[in-house]
Amino acid sequence: MLDSWNDGPAKSALVDFISRVTTEDGPDYVPPAERIATFDNDGTLWCEQPLQVQVLFLADRIKALAARDTSMASRQPFKALLEHDHATLRALGKQAIEELFAATHAGMSPEAFEGIVQDWFASASHPKFERRYDRVTYKPQVELLNCLREHAFTTFIVSGGGVDFMRVISETAYGIARHQVVGSSGKLRFVDKGQRIELTKLAELNSFDDRETKVHNIALHIGRRPILAFGNSDGDLAMLRYVKSGPGARLALLLHHDDGQREVPYDRDFRLSPLREALDRAGEYGITVVSMKRDWRAVFV
Amino acid sequence: MLDSWNDGPAKSALVDFISRVTTEDGPDYVPPAERIATFDNDGTLWCEQPLQVQVLFLADRIKALAARDTSMASRQPFKALLEHDHATLRALGKQAIEELFAATHAGMSPEAFEGIVQDWFASASHPKFERRYDRVTYKPQVELLNCLREHAFTTFIVSGGGVDFMRVISETAYGIARHQVVGSSGKLRFVDKGQRIELTKLAELNSFDDRETKVHNIALHIGRRPILAFGNSDGDLAMLRYVKSGPGARLALLLHHDDGQREVPYDRDFRLSPLREALDRAGEYGITVVSMKRDWRAVFV
Repeated sequence: MLDSWNDGPAKSALVDFISRVTTEDGPDYVPPAERIATFDNDGTLWCEQPLQVQVLFLADRIKALAARDTSMASRQPFKALLEHDHATLRALGKQAIEELFAATHAGMSPEAFEGIVQDWFASASHPKFERRYDRVTYKPQVELLNCLREHAFTTFIVSGGGVDFMRVISETAYGIARHQVVGSSGKLRFVDKGQRIELTKLAELNSFDDRETKVHNIALHIGRRPILAFGNSDGDLAMLRYVKSGPGARLALLLHHDDGQREVPYDRDFRLSPLREALDRAGEYGITVVSMKRDWRAVFV
Repeated sequence: MLDSWNDGPAKSALVDFISRVTTEDGPDYVPPAERIATFDNDGTLWCEQPLQVQVLFLADRIKALAARDTSMASRQPFKALLEHDHATLRALGKQAIEELFAATHAGMSPEAFEGIVQDWFASASHPKFERRYDRVTYKPQVELLNCLREHAFTTFIVSGGGVDFMRVISETAYGIARHQVVGSSGKLRFVDKGQRIELTKLAELNSFDDRETKVHNIALHIGRRPILAFGNSDGDLAMLRYVKSGPGARLALLLHHDDGQREVPYDRDFRLSPLREALDRAGEYGITVVSMKRDWRAVFV
């Protein structure tokens, strides 16, 4: 158990914490129903470099749609995306992002979307690590999830990623059931087709599951303050602090991507999801920093 | 198993369905991860007469607050509630309901609310059946939930009741974990107290989990179309039809309160949650109607 973790302060903190909350006659014992652990996904459970997996899916999907609808290649924001014209994309701003999501993540049933994502996962491969996306997940984290469940924890993903997207692989990649995945979500339309009720995914945002919203969504979906949380960016800091400020034994962990050999070294300059305040104030908040380079014997599954 | 169910069409439908979806080499086999069952709560898992349990809690809570703040008894809508002045309450309308909920369900942390509800459950008793509220749950339904879980179903509550209220007893009363309870919810405020992060329950509604919204919330919280659903009012019809219109084996059940001896006979005239269309069109929609009088050997746990 935890074979891919090197001996050191991070592994000790994990082993010690799990031991304390599961020791029945100990002062820090936590009943199984309250053993809630929440994990961010992008950059915490799998690789988010050079871009988040869902963004790479979106780009591939635009390419596939443009191959069927040739007019797309001449229309913005699709033109900029297809031509890797990042300056124009940035200039088009938030509306471009909304249009790209609308074209790829909306206007269909959740089941149809699931099928598209499933097909993509079955064939696509990661541009940098040249392996299928279900193999850019982190081996030490999969071991940790298994170890926690063996100790009667209930494990959740709480991520800024799209909930419908992550649910397609959460069970096979992490052993996390779909209803234990909390993420960003769009609004839905209820469609009564007489003999059939369907839902349609709309382009309008329901919840962007980042920062304080992660805490709101934990209360809404889980209904208990977790006793362990794991993140890797400032978007996770509210969740980590929420976990640490409950009573009793608590563990908050922050993965620091400092391994240029086996992965990608980054923190405060990653534009899409920077790690600044959480790293600078980890000590003050009692957050355990995990060094990928020092603490992980293996990186990918 | 299902000992409190009388032999007859309803019990046969249940036994047959569970057998079909769990027979590995059969045509209707459903893998465990997809065995999702959703139950309404009020009137389906526990008694909702003369009023829903949460409404009775609200009334008791106003009494307790008025005992500490004597000015309350002279202010509306509290005065009308304390004096059982239903005509005035009705005339005050939606705003009165909002003010009553704000006074009893908001302005505190989820943990503080949980403590108040826990204390109430420990001491209060049902006005008609004169038993604690955890004993106005239905024995046949608790058996059915257990039976489904023994067959690797995951069981959920999907109810118009308040999610924070139901979660206080879902584990002990039904064996349903808090994160498997979907209900109505209010908005929350994130409060950063420096060393501590707290949430405050606000009076503003986030989701009223009834009718079509039950289907939206199933997609958001569960992420899979259930294969079995159980309800008792028109507020459950969208969920029952959603379940029935998926592919493969599906079972939708509707509890009909027709037992004047052991419970309360009601359907289309119950103002708070009527049963009309779902009963009239059950045959057309393929919904199995369960008669409390005919199909249940026992009613309460």
